[in-house]
Amino acid sequence: MDCIFCKIVSGEIPCFKVYEDENALAFLDVAPCADGHTMVIPKKHAGAFVEMTPEEAGNLFEAVNKVSVRLMDKLENVTGLTIGANTYASAGQTVMHTHIHIFPRCEGDGGGTTHSIVNSAVSKDPEYLKKISELLTSENENV
Amino acid sequence: MDCIFCKIVSGEIPCFKVYEDENALAFLDVAPCADGHTMVIPKKHAGAFVEMTPEEAGNLFEAVNKVSVRLMDKLENVTGLTIGANTYASAGQTVMHTHIHIFPRCEGDGGGTTHSIVNSAVSKDPEYLKKISELLTSENENV
Repeated sequence: MDCIFCKIVSGEIPCFKVYEDENALAFLDVAPCADGHTMVIPKKHAGAFVEMTPEEAGNLFEAVNKVSVRLMDKLENVTGLTIGANTYASAGQTVMHTHIHIFPRCEGDGGGTTHSIVNSAVSKDPEYLKKISELLTSENENV
Repeated sequence: MDCIFCKIVSGEIPCFKVYEDENALAFLDVAPCADGHTMVIPKKHAGAFVEMTPEEAGNLFEAVNKVSVRLMDKLENVTGLTIGANTYASAGQTVMHTHIHIFPRCEGDGGGTTHSIVNSAVSKDPEYLKKISELLTSENENV
């Protein structure tokens, strides 16, 4: 498969490894936005987060959790993390093998929050929210 | 416990529910940054993502995966998602009960990517990255 992250998993392309288990591999982003900027990927190819099964997504985030703890423990001055996944092109995903970014954060690093990403002027009207909630919960086995 | 999200879990404070299972609850953000902006939280209180066990984090993201699929299936014009967690104050976490944001994305919505959040000028020098990688993998049972 002509997927750069699959080639990293197979070892064909080297990486700066941070963590590995049966299901997941974590390595440093070579174009880091923060010191220790790490990506966690599933070893089994999945184009995007929503193309994984819930179980696969769970396994991936067990690894994300362990890597997150490690980043906070081992890196100096790190007091927080931004954890994020750009899912599909309209959200800015460029490599089509799902990957979770972890950006270590320090006090006063000048960064923002997930709300820096998208902040459309959308309705907060309770009736409108109720309609969306009903749409999303209709015909589903869990409320 | 004086935690607003625990009160939502217990039903003391109402919410616009999107999904619920044994471990997790998802509901609309009442100050949405995008149509269908949803938060997924663990029912069991955890101050931040790194305060959960790996298993708890996995369970939470099984729910995040299911909710993500649902948002993409049910909402018109949604072609992507930004999934993110602000972890601790330096990353902009304000409610200290871990919560995963899901922002539905549409073509041309003007939003950015996770890289919009923090983009410090950090070293890309391979020797430097190697040092960080070694620091992060030292004394760990998994490489």
